[in-house]
Amino acid sequence: MTSEAQVIARLRRIANDPAARGLLDDAALLDGLVITHDTIAEGVHFLPSDPPASVGWKLVAVNLSDLAAKGAKPAGALLSLTIGDDGSWDDEFLTGVEHACESYGLPLIGGDTVALPDSAPRVLGLTAIGRPGPKVPSRDGARPGDSLWLVGTLGDAAAGLRQLSEEPKAHGLLVESYRRPVPQLGAGQVLAEHANAMMDVSDGLLLDAARLAQASNGVAEIALDRLPLSRAFTAERGQDRGARLFAATGGDDYALLAALPAECDPLILPLPSGTTITHIGAMTAGSPEVRLFDGVDPIRLPETLGYEHRGRNASPMADCP
Amino acid sequence: MTSEAQVIARLRRIANDPAARGLLDDAALLDGLVITHDTIAEGVHFLPSDPPASVGWKLVAVNLSDLAAKGAKPAGALLSLTIGDDGSWDDEFLTGVEHACESYGLPLIGGDTVALPDSAPRVLGLTAIGRPGPKVPSRDGARPGDSLWLVGTLGDAAAGLRQLSEEPKAHGLLVESYRRPVPQLGAGQVLAEHANAMMDVSDGLLLDAARLAQASNGVAEIALDRLPLSRAFTAERGQDRGARLFAATGGDDYALLAALPAECDPLILPLPSGTTITHIGAMTAGSPEVRLFDGVDPIRLPETLGYEHRGRNASPMADCP
Repeated sequence: MTSEAQVIARLRRIANDPAARGLLDDAALLDGLVITHDTIAEGVHFLPSDPPASVGWKLVAVNLSDLAAKGAKPAGALLSLTIGDDGSWDDEFLTGVEHACESYGLPLIGGDTVALPDSAPRVLGLTAIGRPGPKVPSRDGARPGDSLWLVGTLGDAAAGLRQLSEEPKAHGLLVESYRRPVPQLGAGQVLAEHANAMMDVSDGLLLDAARLAQASNGVAEIALDRLPLSRAFTAERGQDRGARLFAATGGDDYALLAALPAECDPLILPLPSGTTITHIGAMTAGSPEVRLFDGVDPIRLPETLGYEHRGRNASPMADCP
Repeated sequence: MTSEAQVIARLRRIANDPAARGLLDDAALLDGLVITHDTIAEGVHFLPSDPPASVGWKLVAVNLSDLAAKGAKPAGALLSLTIGDDGSWDDEFLTGVEHACESYGLPLIGGDTVALPDSAPRVLGLTAIGRPGPKVPSRDGARPGDSLWLVGTLGDAAAGLRQLSEEPKAHGLLVESYRRPVPQLGAGQVLAEHANAMMDVSDGLLLDAARLAQASNGVAEIALDRLPLSRAFTAERGQDRGARLFAATGGDDYALLAALPAECDPLILPLPSGTTITHIGAMTAGSPEVRLFDGVDPIRLPETLGYEHRGRNASPMADCP
């Protein structure tokens, strides 16, 4: 095992409290509150050249996406940030944090600052706390026969990141999608009441669907031809099988994946106006895995199911809650 | 203003929710839970040569000390850690985390791992959540006439750190005190019901007492000659005025400072057996400041009130909750 896989296996053994949900969920559930912590690091989760305000926005948004996946309303956040000598970077970063907190009604209630040497990469953490509704879907409740629905579109952020890797000054809708993800809080709250399982899609649909299949001990069948692509995405990368595989494995989508009972039609639920929700597959019985179809044809899974950005040698379980 | 002072001033303005307690407390209070997050960084809060298990212990203990200061019982923790290529370091670190979590009944309920380049300093964060009793003392409730009591002894950790700076292989009780602080959870729970104000002493008594004075808008008078020193400390550094000033400004004590009504005698409270609790001063009316006495003589404050380890140019307010 790699060092990181060992660490995660060890954490799993330590975290044997029911509130931990086996470290297999997007968030912990304690005394009726949903609690999550995500850390982002320079050079790993964001680019040194990214505008600092977008980094601040993203740190808040990725944590809110975890709350969205549990149907929770934002209640408070604790910020942990390293501070360098570049005061204007820190100031713009906080503008992004404040903008996202204001936009989603997330009060900043605590935090911690650490001054690191200038050469050290920035490490920025946020603990987000949310108040859930009466039902808090985990990843492990999907049942054979459930329909799989996706909230949002896929591939935009990955396409934006690709544009930036080719041209650091690239801009446009795809780059914005990469830098400023929008958490699906409203849709999450509506779907949580009905979903047998729900999670956010942050590391690539196929990788995250595999995690849901593993946690639920079933098969997640995904219809590649049904995946929702934005017009900006198809204009940039097309919509052939290659483009769809790119979208299904790219990561940084911050979409929601929900397993709903087959009889539940989310299109008649009071989702926020403008919500993109798409029927992309179904759960079936069998050894846990993800299976991919293009129309009626089963197709081979790509070698890499997603963007394991938690570590160079991350295991599929690297995404602790 | 320095960059860090600017960042903290800005955070104060953003954090205007009552749960934030103005970012002037050891922890936030949300829906009846006490929540705190402390991050420790290699080269800032611990030495690269410190045994990894002691670093894990310390990360947990410093957060538990914040819960202790609010009289809260440990309920859960989320761990955020950077992972390098040295698997044995990470493994021993987790042993220390697990040991402290087991020792104080703190379930690990979530976390996040980030793989950083090997040259980057380790940054380790913990969010600790506690269930408080009926009363949660803040830093701002001390009143003129209150007695100031200290739980624990002062200076041991600073003396241990000094030994290590002179001899990296130094060992003994003082070094252990620096590496493995013991949170005063039991005493904190008992005192919380009676204290008008309480906080943990982590950055040096005089600096932390100045923060309590500031938050409570009063004067904290401290009797240097009454400060509790351990036998290990006095054997190493003596107990003259210089030694006492060293102990009062050293930091890393993880003691508790409580403002109790004058009529409250904590010596008759059901404190855990073995608790060292000492009457070290009193609150009086006046512009917020800390005043120091040796016997009946007022003495000048030292230039540095404490160990502002949060940053090279940290303000006295650097210690956000």
